[in-house]
Amino acid sequence: MGKKVLIVGGGPAGCAAGATFGMRGDDVTIVDMREDLRIRNGGPGPEQRSINLALSTRGLTALDAIGCGDGARELGVPMHGREVHALDGSTQFQQYGQFGQYLLSVPRSALNELVIDAAEKNGCQVLFGHKCRDLSLDEPSVTVEVGQGTERKLQADLVIGADGAFSRVRAMMMRKEWFNYSQDYIPAAYKELSISAENGKDMRLEALHIWPRHQFMLIALPNLDRSFTCTLFLDRDQFDKITTPAQVREFFQKWFPDALELMPDVDVQFFNNPTPGLVTVKTYPYHYSDKALLIGDAAHAIVPFYGQGCNLALEDVRILSDLLEEHGGILSSVLREFTEKRKQNADTIAKLALDNYSDMASRTASAYFQMRKKIGLALNRIAPKTFVPLYTMISFSNVPYSEAEQSAQRTERAITSLFSTAAVLSVLAAGTAATVAAVKTYQKSTRS
Amino acid sequence: MGKKVLIVGGGPAGCAAGATFGMRGDDVTIVDMREDLRIRNGGPGPEQRSINLALSTRGLTALDAIGCGDGARELGVPMHGREVHALDGSTQFQQYGQFGQYLLSVPRSALNELVIDAAEKNGCQVLFGHKCRDLSLDEPSVTVEVGQGTERKLQADLVIGADGAFSRVRAMMMRKEWFNYSQDYIPAAYKELSISAENGKDMRLEALHIWPRHQFMLIALPNLDRSFTCTLFLDRDQFDKITTPAQVREFFQKWFPDALELMPDVDVQFFNNPTPGLVTVKTYPYHYSDKALLIGDAAHAIVPFYGQGCNLALEDVRILSDLLEEHGGILSSVLREFTEKRKQNADTIAKLALDNYSDMASRTASAYFQMRKKIGLALNRIAPKTFVPLYTMISFSNVPYSEAEQSAQRTERAITSLFSTAAVLSVLAAGTAATVAAVKTYQKSTRS
Repeated sequence: MGKKVLIVGGGPAGCAAGATFGMRGDDVTIVDMREDLRIRNGGPGPEQRSINLALSTRGLTALDAIGCGDGARELGVPMHGREVHALDGSTQFQQYGQFGQYLLSVPRSALNELVIDAAEKNGCQVLFGHKCRDLSLDEPSVTVEVGQGTERKLQADLVIGADGAFSRVRAMMMRKEWFNYSQDYIPAAYKELSISAENGKDMRLEALHIWPRHQFMLIALPNLDRSFTCTLFLDRDQFDKITTPAQVREFFQKWFPDALELMPDVDVQFFNNPTPGLVTVKTYPYHYSDKALLIGDAAHAIVPFYGQGCNLALEDVRILSDLLEEHGGILSSVLREFTEKRKQNADTIAKLALDNYSDMASRTASAYFQMRKKIGLALNRIAPKTFVPLYTMISFSNVPYSEAEQSAQRTERAITSLFSTAAVLSVLAAGTAATVAAVKTYQKSTRS
Repeated sequence: MGKKVLIVGGGPAGCAAGATFGMRGDDVTIVDMREDLRIRNGGPGPEQRSINLALSTRGLTALDAIGCGDGARELGVPMHGREVHALDGSTQFQQYGQFGQYLLSVPRSALNELVIDAAEKNGCQVLFGHKCRDLSLDEPSVTVEVGQGTERKLQADLVIGADGAFSRVRAMMMRKEWFNYSQDYIPAAYKELSISAENGKDMRLEALHIWPRHQFMLIALPNLDRSFTCTLFLDRDQFDKITTPAQVREFFQKWFPDALELMPDVDVQFFNNPTPGLVTVKTYPYHYSDKALLIGDAAHAIVPFYGQGCNLALEDVRILSDLLEEHGGILSSVLREFTEKRKQNADTIAKLALDNYSDMASRTASAYFQMRKKIGLALNRIAPKTFVPLYTMISFSNVPYSEAEQSAQRTERAITSLFSTAAVLSVLAAGTAATVAAVKTYQKSTRS
């Protein structure tokens, strides 16, 4: 007999998990406080996260498993590399991988609609406008508010919190002892902006555009209609200093003059859009007994600089599915092992995502960085299985994040030693040349 | 005109803060969800934290400032050092300082009653049985529940959250963006136990008793009536293995045979008392605009192994008082500077308290540790201002924790170099002796 599974949160992680349990024959209910995205007419609503998603192999693998992969590929624009915009307006294209690898730029809401459909197709009941009010962990049950003041208690065998970085389910789990938790904001905040299809028509479509300016950056992700969704990352105290339309234009004129031409209305957009913070959330454990589990951002929100937040969340579901298979659905084993398997990997990508801010904002513009990248790709070409660049393993494989990082550390050491060897050889070469010159001078002097 | 200050939490930090604002002529209300401790007859209630407090200089200085220091000294037993109990029942006394320095063992509830009195004497209104339900940060106001279902909204100029490690005020502040937070449990849990006055009559009264057993330990703090309040610190999974009275007796017989004689009813006590976890809580910032502030455990709960949790909390109030004086009560400056001044110090003592678990459980029993301690005290005797041992600075001074740690690192390096010098000198001495011997042998051989 199937289990009764109650999932709080109808985003990509929640719906993918719902579809997975549904495919196993379990009785799944998904509750979401928002209204049905598919009914509202277009445009992201106020509660929606806005940055476009860059789906990579992990996310697509998980979507394939619930029959959504091709749907996502149709919705998205493949990005084969970075287009770096210098201050003087010149651009440089840096390919991500060498085997036709790409990131898929997908609007968040379009992907969400896709997975809601998949959940329903697999028998899930999806209840919109249901706000999680309370969680009784030991039953387990969730009390939801339906409309103004009307409450309903939903019983289940398993409650899954897939309700994002500000998870209510997690807040209830935190009241129990022995639950470790942290939330850490970085100094940078972000502002979403947009380049219209008309203005974006001459931009390279199949690329992630970056304007790296060291302490801050602008990025732009393509949409199918040739419009671009941009995000400005800037320290919060710098954002606070920009208070008038004239200051917005001045800032863009100084740092992003080419982008200003593409967004003539940037000063209007700037004040119409919010300025959210960027938070890393860590929890441990992800589960409570065999009653409750956190997945996705509710368990481990990360900053967006490796484009892995949604991929990590969807990979959670793939691993959960594997563990359900492996343990014949015995929840106590599944949940315990899920925590142990995922914790280390989520911590690893959280750290890499934080590190990657400086990479994106600065190092993409540095010759040394590009040289190392090229050496990495060259080594990869010579020995494709031995030397896989970190970025390639993170974005274009399903190798666990921790293993990817360890392997990359070995590769980095190899590249560093190549650099050192090259440096020693050039010193030796210079020394030899100097010796030869000295000998020649000596010979000359003795001859005269 | 005085400010309206609303303090949530009537423990030592909340009441000391109340007394401080009261002395400045502000209009102070303190709400606490518990009933008035002074009305209940003796014995810690279910919501009370139980470990006896070890008040040291920081705590006593803060209590002196609100006229409670002498009251505390009358309630407490001075502990001049550690009495270390070996497995064979032998004991060794290790003095804390050399200038009559002592920690004051005080029952938590007695101290709490003292500070409630002080708050009331300084004009605070203390409302018991008032549970904080909601906090509106921007007004600011607090909604409290009085009895079953009756709610009351209290307006203020400043709300102070002094409601402990599981603070409600903090939970509300966490909903705002840009609030960093972490809670981390250590593997050890604790169990409070008690040695009766009759059984404790032959124990050294003016000492903190420790039974260090490396992976775990038992401690006992004296009370005025010669009873001792004990705490067993043990990893949670080890606690879980002790499930019967026979297993309790067996465990004590094996590891603490002398303590078992002093607590013949340990098996009964063991199952009557809870087994709480030990958590480190960190937050940043401690304030919200000029509207709200966290102090004490609500801002920074630490593990008890340096005996500094309550001292840190009371020191918060002393620093807050200094800042109010310095800034003429201008809250925006006071609160911002409070965060900057306290954060680093709270983080330092949090780390030292975690480190001190291994010191207490293991190193108090090690000859090397004791040797270093003795060298530290000897250096201190030679140059009392230059070489102050860390423990002395933390417990017997008001030097900011961070400065104390930095100074101690310099002293540690000095001791290490003394050790090294001693080692070099003995090698040299041995070498010289060998050389002298060799020369003598040579002389002998040439003579013969």
